[in-house]
Amino acid sequence: MIEIIEHGAVRELRLARPPANALSPDLMAALTAALARAVAEAARVAALVLSGAPGIFSAGLDVPYLLTLDRAGIRAMWRNLYALMRALAASPLPVVAAITGHSPAGGAVLALFCDARVMADGDFRIGLNEVRVGLPLPPVILAAMRRLVGPRHAERMSVTGALVSAAEAARIGLVDEVVPPDRVVERAVAIATEMAGLPRTAMAETRRLARADLVALFDGVGAVGEGGDVGDGADGSDGGDEIESVLDSWFSVEAQTTMRALVERLARKRG
Amino acid sequence: MIEIIEHGAVRELRLARPPANALSPDLMAALTAALARAVAEAARVAALVLSGAPGIFSAGLDVPYLLTLDRAGIRAMWRNLYALMRALAASPLPVVAAITGHSPAGGAVLALFCDARVMADGDFRIGLNEVRVGLPLPPVILAAMRRLVGPRHAERMSVTGALVSAAEAARIGLVDEVVPPDRVVERAVAIATEMAGLPRTAMAETRRLARADLVALFDGVGAVGEGGDVGDGADGSDGGDEIESVLDSWFSVEAQTTMRALVERLARKRG
Amino acid sequence: MIEIIEHGAVRELRLARPPANALSPDLMAALTAALARAVAEAARVAALVLSGAPGIFSAGLDVPYLLTLDRAGIRAMWRNLYALMRALAASPLPVVAAITGHSPAGGAVLALFCDARVMADGDFRIGLNEVRVGLPLPPVILAAMRRLVGPRHAERMSVTGALVSAAEAARIGLVDEVVPPDRVVERAVAIATEMAGLPRTAMAETRRLARADLVALFDGVGAVGEGGDVGDGADGSDGGDEIESVLDSWFSVEAQTTMRALVERLARKRG
Repeated sequence: MIEIIEHGAVRELRLARPPANALSPDLMAALTAALARAVAEAARVAALVLSGAPGIFSAGLDVPYLLTLDRAGIRAMWRNLYALMRALAASPLPVVAAITGHSPAGGAVLALFCDARVMADGDFRIGLNEVRVGLPLPPVILAAMRRLVGPRHAERMSVTGALVSAAEAARIGLVDEVVPPDRVVERAVAIATEMAGLPRTAMAETRRLARADLVALFDGVGAVGEGGDVGDGADGSDGGDEIESVLDSWFSVEAQTTMRALVERLARKRG
Repeated sequence: MIEIIEHGAVRELRLARPPANALSPDLMAALTAALARAVAEAARVAALVLSGAPGIFSAGLDVPYLLTLDRAGIRAMWRNLYALMRALAASPLPVVAAITGHSPAGGAVLALFCDARVMADGDFRIGLNEVRVGLPLPPVILAAMRRLVGPRHAERMSVTGALVSAAEAARIGLVDEVVPPDRVVERAVAIATEMAGLPRTAMAETRRLARADLVALFDGVGAVGEGGDVGDGADGSDGGDEIESVLDSWFSVEAQTTMRALVERLARKRG
Repeated sequence: MIEIIEHGAVRELRLARPPANALSPDLMAALTAALARAVAEAARVAALVLSGAPGIFSAGLDVPYLLTLDRAGIRAMWRNLYALMRALAASPLPVVAAITGHSPAGGAVLALFCDARVMADGDFRIGLNEVRVGLPLPPVILAAMRRLVGPRHAERMSVTGALVSAAEAARIGLVDEVVPPDRVVERAVAIATEMAGLPRTAMAETRRLARADLVALFDGVGAVGEGGDVGDGADGSDGGDEIESVLDSWFSVEAQTTMRALVERLARKRG
């Protein structure tokens, strides 16, 4: 589900779960593990690029599959997502997001925790549209969004669940650069290569300081599985209050009704 | 002093105190009460628009009238303004500001605490020009300004008391959209209508989280009258230290001299 | 090393240490002392402009000279820089930076702590390129940068040690205005003059409030020499933990190697 492509000292982790790189618990765990492996090979790997498929970076959570899971399964899924977000935030290696296409909800979330974001120009949308599927935006995600775009845009974008073009995303700071679709990975690799060539300790120490607030967002969350260890979901007590609250929202009547209606619309559209 | 216009699930509260919608203690209390009534009718009202008159949203505090009041009267006035700001910040219903024209000082202040700001294009100015009339900017207002435009613009705009055009206000983030004057209310109603149509709980919960820092600005202020109850101003002890400090500034020689000179200039201009 | 030019109520402090206004310990102490003298003459001086030479505002720390100093000497230097940054942050008089040309590293640092920044248009660069010479960015400098440009740009600019054009600096908020080179001082004086003409107490009080977070950055730093008193550097215990940590980085193998290579490159370039 993750393709590895080496570009000199830069390793590209390409999401490869067709058709839409929807985030299943397994894909999230695989990505967290791939990050950990790259860190363990820091002698050879100096920076990372996180990319998707042409036209689609990631469609976000795999809602049709997730609607088949019970509370323990959904708890394990959110633990995986929190572990992945924290692994990106705290990564000792820089990670540049190559947003190769659409990037709604969970797709945008992954990009928030990277070092830089390059997005494909064209008819692609990005944003935190969780509210539109009936889910309140989890606190760590809202806080990471605020960090990138400031409180005003974060409030408006998250409350209305807006999806915006790459150009608008660049205007508000949700992405850093917009380039033609066939240049996205190349440009992200160039940024990562430049970071890999800087004086190593000075860069790492400055980066640690500049991102300390991003890592600290997870302080209050509780044990979500260090290093991708996601637990068995059988015991709610170690999932963190924030995750339990997110779970309550997931199983609310509004969220369940809205997500089921969405899945039915998608199914009718396809068939 | 407040006209009520219903637009489906959106209620417009139109400031109607000619000629300039100057904020008298009564107008502020009336607006706070109108907000409370809308919240009480949440079954019928899902979002609000706060609008002014063509060419003038609000001229800010009614300085000529206020100069006739003693310390108790001015204390009651500031309590009303703090109660109104807090009611806007903490409103369970979204409030979109339709800035129909000039919006100096108190006019801009009301907009800071709304969910979104649409301003009329044309020769209209907005800003926090308190310093130019001799008043230090109260802490909660500076903090709300920082939240919208960031520390750099908030410092420069508030220290210099600058009034800027709608275009400049949009550039720095003080307003969100600029439209022709005859489209301002229509556009604000459209934004409010869109918010009213979102999944209710998810929107409300995300909005509560995104605005929690705005509401928290009032934690240190003390009792300023819950729900528009403004007290009698006879006892300084329950007005909050911040309001007492604002009162001291109001009655400083510099503020009194500057405000009286301003009022005389305005009177000569008119007569 | 500091030329004083009076423009009515505005005093210009012009860095005058050819060829590049490199920040030596003496220049920093002289500037801190000049700020203190202006404050002592507040009856005649209402605002300040900090300017450089045509084409070069300041090249930043005088690395060739500093490489000849031992730990006590470098400690004294950093104490001087911290004392200068704090004096600018806490200055009771507004200070407008007239960035007359290149402004890398320490040059940009001085500008961060001023009230406003006017930069010369043309082929001039500004930024915090400390990482590129092997130095992690000190925490107070990163925090002051975040305050101006927000966490996203501050992270990217400081981690990559980027130097950018005046136009790009204006786009991200690192400077406020870009004007032709021969207008920089004039424009900075105009801004300072406008601030000097505002109601004094209201302006000063609003300014104190708007800049309180900038001053508070130095709370954790320890005694760095009040009013430019820089101590003898013989006793590390009163230099503050942050400065001792900066010292450790200065004498790291990576920093020393990178700075010596840089100085050799510059020497070869000059002939």
